[in-house]
Amino acid sequence: MPSGVAAIIVAAGSSQRMGGQDKLFLPLGKLPVLARAVEPFQRSELVRHIVLVVNRSNHRMTRALVERLHWTKVAHICLGGPRRQDSVARGLSKLTGCEWVVVHDGARPFVSEEMVRRGLEAARQTGASVAAVPVKDTIKIAGEDGLVRETPPRKDLWIAQTPQVFRFDIISNAYAQAGEESTDDAVLVERLGYRVRLFPGSYGNIKITTPEDLRLAQALLEGMNEQL
Amino acid sequence: MPSGVAAIIVAAGSSQRMGGQDKLFLPLGKLPVLARAVEPFQRSELVRHIVLVVNRSNHRMTRALVERLHWTKVAHICLGGPRRQDSVARGLSKLTGCEWVVVHDGARPFVSEEMVRRGLEAARQTGASVAAVPVKDTIKIAGEDGLVRETPPRKDLWIAQTPQVFRFDIISNAYAQAGEESTDDAVLVERLGYRVRLFPGSYGNIKITTPEDLRLAQALLEGMNEQL
Repeated sequence: MPSGVAAIIVAAGSSQRMGGQDKLFLPLGKLPVLARAVEPFQRSELVRHIVLVVNRSNHRMTRALVERLHWTKVAHICLGGPRRQDSVARGLSKLTGCEWVVVHDGARPFVSEEMVRRGLEAARQTGASVAAVPVKDTIKIAGEDGLVRETPPRKDLWIAQTPQVFRFDIISNAYAQAGEESTDDAVLVERLGYRVRLFPGSYGNIKITTPEDLRLAQALLEGMNEQL
Repeated sequence: MPSGVAAIIVAAGSSQRMGGQDKLFLPLGKLPVLARAVEPFQRSELVRHIVLVVNRSNHRMTRALVERLHWTKVAHICLGGPRRQDSVARGLSKLTGCEWVVVHDGARPFVSEEMVRRGLEAARQTGASVAAVPVKDTIKIAGEDGLVRETPPRKDLWIAQTPQVFRFDIISNAYAQAGEESTDDAVLVERLGYRVRLFPGSYGNIKITTPEDLRLAQALLEGMNEQL
């Protein structure tokens, strides 16, 4: 198993699509969204350190949460940047002496220890891995004119999620050369020609962005509890 | 406005991912899923005829629903085929003398009259149109080896939904030449080189496939009622 694993939890978004409320501290059952996203990393025996990247207005609340939930692995709470990738870069800058980095969205509360384990295993094969689930919809590629250019075969299409796992030197290199804005970390690594392996995420591993997502998350949580 | 518009509601699926229950007759508020999918077509002044394509075990229940809800436009209730595209083909075979065909999934209960209108307007420009919403996730194209081949720019990616609208001769031609299985109707039309225009669907216009989807649909319905 990989040694020296650090997790960066990216939680510095502005929650613009949540109508003013900060999505990371909204309650989901007995815990806020962010706490559910962090707990599996705190519990996992594979993870040594956790870096939380938050925005200025949440810094104090995050510190209180770390104390209240006894997150002993949290080594840093640092402030994010204007774009997601700036936030990841700031998290990376806090890490030294680790071999593997797991990047995870603070707004994905249904990550599991098992998913983190799978991600590390997959990343060992190529140096980089991404949680993914098969696309269920038909996807169209269209131009700015609104006309369909292509309908790629659905069997080849995957929805990228987090966790995304990288060898430390690869992700550091990718971020050092990061150019235009990207929607995920793996694409920066792909651009440099590194191979990225997909591993099974979960349809339940949603990212909470809108009030509808929060409703869905509550429904998913109820479904999980019913199964206990 | 287009004249001679017929709608084909495709409702012949086996509901395999719904754990044995037929999703089309599950209640969503006061109406079953299928009824919500049909009502906007019955109400729309632009639609003249409706063809319902169902499976054998639902034929009688569908007939009763048509009577109970006074769906005066339903001209045929016909039996579907083994694949979705066989069902659409059977629906098409019932149509004569119409100029435009609107194909809609019976498992999408949140279609609206306004969406049907938009679809017809878009189809007038090219002969074919597809309801679509922008993809919010990062999509990876991967090979069978599980390695990422490409991350297409998200701004070019759209989730295809129904309604899909076609000039009658175009869709008939496409189905006459339909080869391998397809996940939507528009792709058959694209393969023949016709231009297909996207028009705005809605994120709420979900297709109910799994029990989680039904839960989401119920949450969406509650959200809509709260807004009334």
